[in-house]
Amino acid sequence: MKLTILGCYSGTPHGNKNSTAQVLEIKSHTFLIDCGEGTQLQLRKNKVKFSRIKHIFISHLHGDHFYGLIGLISTFRLLGREADLTIYGPKGIKEIIVLQLKLSKSWTNYNLIFKELNSKSSELIFEDDNVIVDTIPLDHRIYTNGFMFTEINKERRLNMNAVLNAHVHVSYYQRLKNGDDVINEKGQMIKNSDLTFKPAKPKRYAFCSDTAFKPLVKDQIKKVTLLYHEATFLDEHQNLCERTKHSTAKQAAEIAKLAEVGTLLLGHFSARYSDINLFKKEAQTVFENVILANDGKIIEFKNL
Amino acid sequence: MKLTILGCYSGTPHGNKNSTAQVLEIKSHTFLIDCGEGTQLQLRKNKVKFSRIKHIFISHLHGDHFYGLIGLISTFRLLGREADLTIYGPKGIKEIIVLQLKLSKSWTNYNLIFKELNSKSSELIFEDDNVIVDTIPLDHRIYTNGFMFTEINKERRLNMNAVLNAHVHVSYYQRLKNGDDVINEKGQMIKNSDLTFKPAKPKRYAFCSDTAFKPLVKDQIKKVTLLYHEATFLDEHQNLCERTKHSTAKQAAEIAKLAEVGTLLLGHFSARYSDINLFKKEAQTVFENVILANDGKIIEFKNL
Repeated sequence: MKLTILGCYSGTPHGNKNSTAQVLEIKSHTFLIDCGEGTQLQLRKNKVKFSRIKHIFISHLHGDHFYGLIGLISTFRLLGREADLTIYGPKGIKEIIVLQLKLSKSWTNYNLIFKELNSKSSELIFEDDNVIVDTIPLDHRIYTNGFMFTEINKERRLNMNAVLNAHVHVSYYQRLKNGDDVINEKGQMIKNSDLTFKPAKPKRYAFCSDTAFKPLVKDQIKKVTLLYHEATFLDEHQNLCERTKHSTAKQAAEIAKLAEVGTLLLGHFSARYSDINLFKKEAQTVFENVILANDGKIIEFKNL
Repeated sequence: MKLTILGCYSGTPHGNKNSTAQVLEIKSHTFLIDCGEGTQLQLRKNKVKFSRIKHIFISHLHGDHFYGLIGLISTFRLLGREADLTIYGPKGIKEIIVLQLKLSKSWTNYNLIFKELNSKSSELIFEDDNVIVDTIPLDHRIYTNGFMFTEINKERRLNMNAVLNAHVHVSYYQRLKNGDDVINEKGQMIKNSDLTFKPAKPKRYAFCSDTAFKPLVKDQIKKVTLLYHEATFLDEHQNLCERTKHSTAKQAAEIAKLAEVGTLLLGHFSARYSDINLFKKEAQTVFENVILANDGKIIEFKNL
């Protein structure tokens, strides 16, 4: 499980400060989360294979989170894409994209599927054998969702020492992982629990951008491996936070503390601050385990 | 009069190859012509003052010519713009922009004026004392206009030797420029034609992108100072040109020759060619005075 930050700045993109976009590799999926203007260039720069992206999650319809989507959809078409693309985002996103495709007479040659969201409660929006994705309703100026990505680890882990000692043939390993009891090479029935450990604890990633301070969110993101929480401003600008419905670094840390998360990742920094280390410093007055997003940064979940 | 190329590549932007956008400084105006994704970043990189842009001309609704427009409009808002912004473009452009502003609840705090185009004949779309802009109907897969920018030079130029010899007081110079006869310091009436030259020949810039080979265009662009004509492909790919309604470098040169233009500027190059000098070489088999667009290139009309 790996997260690549393509852009982590709020508002207008400039210089090397890109608008929000992230790539989450989880099991066999490559999920794109938000898609600010220029995301396709950031994907290339970070060597993400375009063809691997089959699901795009858009938190809300402010430009710095989705103005790059229509360009990416068009580029997929120019590259001859055939695989389905599913877009999860607020109601209205389909109308925006389809209108532009219609006026440019540039219908995609692949299936473009929209899952429009308008619920104010958390919803399960994606599920397969390996991953589930739920929305995290947030509190912003317009309808906004965060997203919770959860691994499903059904397979038990082999206790290799015990397996070898019990003389179980390699062809039975998958059945052991599935939780079955097996017969060893001497014809003895061996109990599964003697040869395996519980499945690995599933890792979870919570993406929360953009939002005002919303302590209620803590129940849904309890003990996630990694919480990305927006921190647009520092505490000194709390008045701006209230007006714009964003969070300070300190408030993000308070959410991390309430939810007892593993690691807090801060981003969506306002361009007014020249030193983003101030965000870390402020957050750490409340919650110790803080890292800062940065365009191009890669976070391996096995290291968390 | 000065032209800055912000982007001159066709299709999907990548690396340092930007989608079509140009800035034309003409008299006191700073006109933006087309606005592919990332144009706002190119404007910053080329140090164009955002506040000077009051008119944006969009040739057609293919993404590589306008996907950067909504982002620029939003950034103007974030920067606190108050001046009117007028957008000239195909019918439908207003719906695209307004829908996105509506869904993001981000109305501009400045007047956003749309002049939607749907005529198949050339139209005068902008006029003041110094400049006129006409559309140049082109032949592409969707409704497309080029634009003709013409300086208006009404003022006669002073023949300074004659003016000094005739003892005309400096306070009469403007009246001389206006074409009036004047009385000199000795009380003698002096004919304007003895003291002035004709107004400078107005410079004209024709922007033609995207279009199939359309010889009919020659009448409208006859003898322009500078013709930007798209050259998406080389002659070896004429089959692609026909299918996609683009032009080869050779065809662009044929238009330049037919129209007897001063200089031909080629752009909108397909990314399939690694050496764009081939475009110049091919065009020069037909028309000698060819220059190549390049992102960041500046063309001063006084040097043409």
